[in-house]
Amino acid sequence: MGTDGIDLRHHGDAEVGGGLADFAVNVRPGTPPAWLAERIRRSVGDLAAYPDPSAARDAVAARHGRAPDEVLLTAGAAEAFVLLARALAPRRAVVVHPQFTEPEAALRAAGHPVERAILDGDFKLDPARVPADADLVMVGNPTNPTSVLHPAAEIAALTRPGRTVVVDEAFMDCVPGEPESLAAVRLPGLVVLRSLTKTWGLAGLRAGYVLAEPPLVAALAEAQPLWAVSTPALVAVEACCEPSALAEADAWAREMAAERDRFAAELGRRGLSPVPGARASFLCVRTPGAHDLRERLRARGLAVRRGDTFPGLGPDWLRIAVRDPATNDTLLETLDDLRR
Amino acid sequence: MGTDGIDLRHHGDAEVGGGLADFAVNVRPGTPPAWLAERIRRSVGDLAAYPDPSAARDAVAARHGRAPDEVLLTAGAAEAFVLLARALAPRRAVVVHPQFTEPEAALRAAGHPVERAILDGDFKLDPARVPADADLVMVGNPTNPTSVLHPAAEIAALTRPGRTVVVDEAFMDCVPGEPESLAAVRLPGLVVLRSLTKTWGLAGLRAGYVLAEPPLVAALAEAQPLWAVSTPALVAVEACCEPSALAEADAWAREMAAERDRFAAELGRRGLSPVPGARASFLCVRTPGAHDLRERLRARGLAVRRGDTFPGLGPDWLRIAVRDPATNDTLLETLDDLRR
Repeated sequence: MGTDGIDLRHHGDAEVGGGLADFAVNVRPGTPPAWLAERIRRSVGDLAAYPDPSAARDAVAARHGRAPDEVLLTAGAAEAFVLLARALAPRRAVVVHPQFTEPEAALRAAGHPVERAILDGDFKLDPARVPADADLVMVGNPTNPTSVLHPAAEIAALTRPGRTVVVDEAFMDCVPGEPESLAAVRLPGLVVLRSLTKTWGLAGLRAGYVLAEPPLVAALAEAQPLWAVSTPALVAVEACCEPSALAEADAWAREMAAERDRFAAELGRRGLSPVPGARASFLCVRTPGAHDLRERLRARGLAVRRGDTFPGLGPDWLRIAVRDPATNDTLLETLDDLRR
Repeated sequence: MGTDGIDLRHHGDAEVGGGLADFAVNVRPGTPPAWLAERIRRSVGDLAAYPDPSAARDAVAARHGRAPDEVLLTAGAAEAFVLLARALAPRRAVVVHPQFTEPEAALRAAGHPVERAILDGDFKLDPARVPADADLVMVGNPTNPTSVLHPAAEIAALTRPGRTVVVDEAFMDCVPGEPESLAAVRLPGLVVLRSLTKTWGLAGLRAGYVLAEPPLVAALAEAQPLWAVSTPALVAVEACCEPSALAEADAWAREMAAERDRFAAELGRRGLSPVPGARASFLCVRTPGAHDLRERLRARGLAVRRGDTFPGLGPDWLRIAVRDPATNDTLLETLDDLRR
């Protein structure tokens, strides 16, 4: 729980199941693709050996133009938050909200006090909300749940001597070409987190990585359990860095973006107002009576994610994942039905 | 590194590869078995969903006659050591050595001072070596690297108000019938760690668990990353708790034990003296010139593990995994050759 009674440990996976159509969890539908599933299956024959992360680390480094000692592979981005909370000793930690709640939860679990810099209105990054003496700043880009993409230059401008700026880019591969990614940028104190969970459908495998300066990577590795990332996850990381995989992800991102924009316009026409400028694979919508609407959608077999567990949102908010056009149309038609 | 320059982070997996016959890593040969590999492969189709540990946790609880809230699934025993080091605040932590070095490494990485209670002679547990005011005691059973099995009652007698006693039972399933296991025993402050790594050949998958009182399980869970154990690992945990799997493991343990005793006697005849009463799937042997012998075995394609990175052992020690009879004979014949 946060200090205000918000359950920071509530996640979309708790809202699905029981045959509900899933608009609550932001994982790309139809994943993992068959070629990737087959690569992972083949790794099962090698499980008797302890995991060796070197090939996957090299592949990530090469993908982002970094050195291998700037890369730490993690058991999903969730592990990265915990390692940062363990390895850093912030005097003044600030989490920019609305945001994925695990960064704050991990800091609190490690005993650090946390301040919230809450964006409002259009949820665009407002550097004035970040206290000048904050020595740890955590921000998502594009942001879960708002879907807002902040300019890379604005995030880079948050860095300064003595401050660590952590950018959660778990959804950056939803953005074609990744123009605002800081993954390839070396700046003192800048930490970029990435995940394979969403685009590749590997939520169950736990695969992600940290990009940072070598001394911080070394400190995080020291706080990490031995052999933290499983062999199947390492195989997946390496495979997803291959040019053909990057091309597949980019093609999907373009297709998803077009469908997202159509879906957003249609939701808007039905009184569910998406935050403008959505760039990720989900929409953050405001609609009076969101709680009641969510219950009525569940009764019709459709799970959307509550928004009220995100600091800075409230009872009028929902997060809706972008699915394929037919599935999205089902939601739109159900909304029409409910208003009749 | 430990305070004495011993590399606590050296493990057997660093000694193998390059086509060497592996006597350095204590994983059961020929694993994972085909039936288990197939179960794990089938889970790859479910990777798009976040892991749900409830079925695996229930299976572990049922196996050991515990309640589900006494079980925490972990990404291998290695994660359990880190979580204990994070969640506990020992004033006087004592690690009983020789032992697997990760418990001490994890405590040091978390900033806790560590004292060593070093057993010698026959490496049997000597409660007098544990200071009366130690509030955290870590012991392995059966112990890696000595292969000594301590009586459950002697370990239980180490518990007392205000003290946590952690028993690493990662190799307990090497002991037919597990007569000295404390997995099913509820005692205040008692923590039992188990692993699927060795018997099931799942070193690459990261699967293990903690058995402890519910409040400590809850505290460890709070320190653990979200979704810490992958879906394939959860599938494996559940599968390995089934009666047919337990019967397979027990049959293997009996067969291994007979071959271990033969191998130990043969090594003894060749001047490599195993610690008496070995009960795990490896032998801890003393032989003058162990370092030189290890190098000469490597030159002949055989990897045995150095013993000098274990506190309490020294340059005269090696750890040798028990393999199948033919592979063990290769080692014995090579030893004969080297003496000619």
